[in-house]
Amino acid sequence: MNNHRLSIQGAVCPIPLQHDDQVLLGHGSGGKLSQNLIQKTFYPAFDNPYLLAGDDAGVIQLEIPGIGDTTKLKLAISTDSHVVAPLFFPGGDIGRLAICGTVNDVAMMGAQPLYLTAGFILEEGFAISDLEKILASMHYAAAEAGILVIAGDTKVVQKGKADGVYINTTGIGLIPANVDIHGSNARPGDLVILSGVIAEHGIAVLQARGELGFTSGIVSDVQPVNHLVSAMLAVSHQIHVLRDPTRGGLATTLNEIACQSEVGIMIHEQSIPIASAVMAACEMLGFDPLYIANEGKLVAIISAEDAQAVLSAMRLIPAGKDAVIIGEVIATPKGRVLGKTILGTTRVIDIPSGEILPRIC
Amino acid sequence: MNNHRLSIQGAVCPIPLQHDDQVLLGHGSGGKLSQNLIQKTFYPAFDNPYLLAGDDAGVIQLEIPGIGDTTKLKLAISTDSHVVAPLFFPGGDIGRLAICGTVNDVAMMGAQPLYLTAGFILEEGFAISDLEKILASMHYAAAEAGILVIAGDTKVVQKGKADGVYINTTGIGLIPANVDIHGSNARPGDLVILSGVIAEHGIAVLQARGELGFTSGIVSDVQPVNHLVSAMLAVSHQIHVLRDPTRGGLATTLNEIACQSEVGIMIHEQSIPIASAVMAACEMLGFDPLYIANEGKLVAIISAEDAQAVLSAMRLIPAGKDAVIIGEVIATPKGRVLGKTILGTTRVIDIPSGEILPRIC
Repeated sequence: MNNHRLSIQGAVCPIPLQHDDQVLLGHGSGGKLSQNLIQKTFYPAFDNPYLLAGDDAGVIQLEIPGIGDTTKLKLAISTDSHVVAPLFFPGGDIGRLAICGTVNDVAMMGAQPLYLTAGFILEEGFAISDLEKILASMHYAAAEAGILVIAGDTKVVQKGKADGVYINTTGIGLIPANVDIHGSNARPGDLVILSGVIAEHGIAVLQARGELGFTSGIVSDVQPVNHLVSAMLAVSHQIHVLRDPTRGGLATTLNEIACQSEVGIMIHEQSIPIASAVMAACEMLGFDPLYIANEGKLVAIISAEDAQAVLSAMRLIPAGKDAVIIGEVIATPKGRVLGKTILGTTRVIDIPSGEILPRIC
Repeated sequence: MNNHRLSIQGAVCPIPLQHDDQVLLGHGSGGKLSQNLIQKTFYPAFDNPYLLAGDDAGVIQLEIPGIGDTTKLKLAISTDSHVVAPLFFPGGDIGRLAICGTVNDVAMMGAQPLYLTAGFILEEGFAISDLEKILASMHYAAAEAGILVIAGDTKVVQKGKADGVYINTTGIGLIPANVDIHGSNARPGDLVILSGVIAEHGIAVLQARGELGFTSGIVSDVQPVNHLVSAMLAVSHQIHVLRDPTRGGLATTLNEIACQSEVGIMIHEQSIPIASAVMAACEMLGFDPLYIANEGKLVAIISAEDAQAVLSAMRLIPAGKDAVIIGEVIATPKGRVLGKTILGTTRVIDIPSGEILPRIC
């Protein structure tokens, strides 16, 4: 989840401005409170079209003058600070999360991620052995994604001024010349593909916090999806939108796309794959899995004629083996996500307003 | 101060490996303890030539295949997490520091900084009015440097898990084809230029902490130096090394260069410009100003024949008006910085070993 998603404040989806004096935990949730903070506070400082695009990464174009011609190079750049608690959870840790989170945000622009930077804020007294585990995990995740960490920075703060370690990663990737993927490109008639089961990451972190009250065996899905994106791009030039449903879950991601593209999205709820253990945990805790974070999934909005070919290509890659079509883009209501329930009724799937799960990523 | 400066561990300047179980404040000082942590802990995870170069930014080369020819594009990428305490200090704040720190690290590769990302970790309860001040400060510093913030991220952690706000900035800049500036390029006979007075930033932050015990009127020098670098590059192709003497001060920076280039550096101490108020504060506190952080200065190592032209060009720019030649590169002792004192004696200016001033940037 990234890049301040400013465009969600557009005419189609205005966020009522709320006046807050202090930063609240909900400001970090990825929901309406986050959007409010961004619109009211960050927006005036960084008002430029790159950030305003509201995608998972900023897209820049460098022009290199040559003899007779100018070479244009499109790069995607994305940043994410990781503050997950606890640092180690079933299926991963903050190190794996920090690599995959940024690799995936860069890949969501159709870019091939190439290089990452890593900035560490360490708390005095943090065990070096834990730091070593986290760094080893970053090493393996970087190899899995095929990227290099080319610049780093380490700061130390006093005990009680952090929570073990926070890790910022910033990534850069090259966008092929013929690729134009943005949150604003969804068109009525497009189909919505989800790459696999949802809500595992959020529930795995809750379990690691001891908040489930039982051991579920659920593990985080944290993984790089850039190779999956490459496989999709190899079979279609009609991929309009890609986004990873992280903080705020699938529901928030779909709402962002609906707002950016000024379209509606109709989801067939029974088509969304959810593991039974995850569903049981959500029911016990009173959570809607549509709002729970994922860290190794993507949503793709694709022209209907290419959807089957893309789906077939996705299913050949481990990260996409459970890919399914979950819905379609509709003309109206603009900026709204609707869910066709198992009973055949239709409900509005809204963007959450306050705190969902703090420090999930 | 950046990019983990791994090369300082080379054959010329081995750091004795120390075994620590826990992160210490001194691990963030920029001195020997920092180098130890990087060598022992970070090095095994991120062992690649980009990071190993040990410069202020990672330098990558992108190749764009064209018709008949391949265009090569050199980019400098640098990351820095800012944890300065307090957030506001005479002459600046964490926002101005976060922009200038990364702009300057990118500029130290001879690159023109173009784009920055910004990642915020906010503490629950932090005053929105303070956040607004910091963002306004970032806005003005970005305009001063001529860069755009193109991607952002905001996370919130519980009260007591941060210290108001921490800001990571990552910057990208374009290196002109004919520029080759690295910490390893210093050659015996080169001259050492310093762009102005030293130690203001560190003392200004100490003053803001109430640690001076008096009000000195000293303000931080925090400013972007990229326009200064452009002016220098316009008059010389013989700039071998550029570096900003931040965390660890001028002494640490010169030691890093001496180690990377496997040369000695002789400094004429009386030629180093220091404001009298700064000198008085350092004497009272028992600090050597050579080890105190700067945030708007640079050190340049330049071939002797170009030094005068570069110096003249620097003095026309406000950020370089007090630029002076402070010493020269010598063949031996390799990896050592020597200071010719005002009494005519020579002392070794070593890299500091432990904590100097925590959370200065």
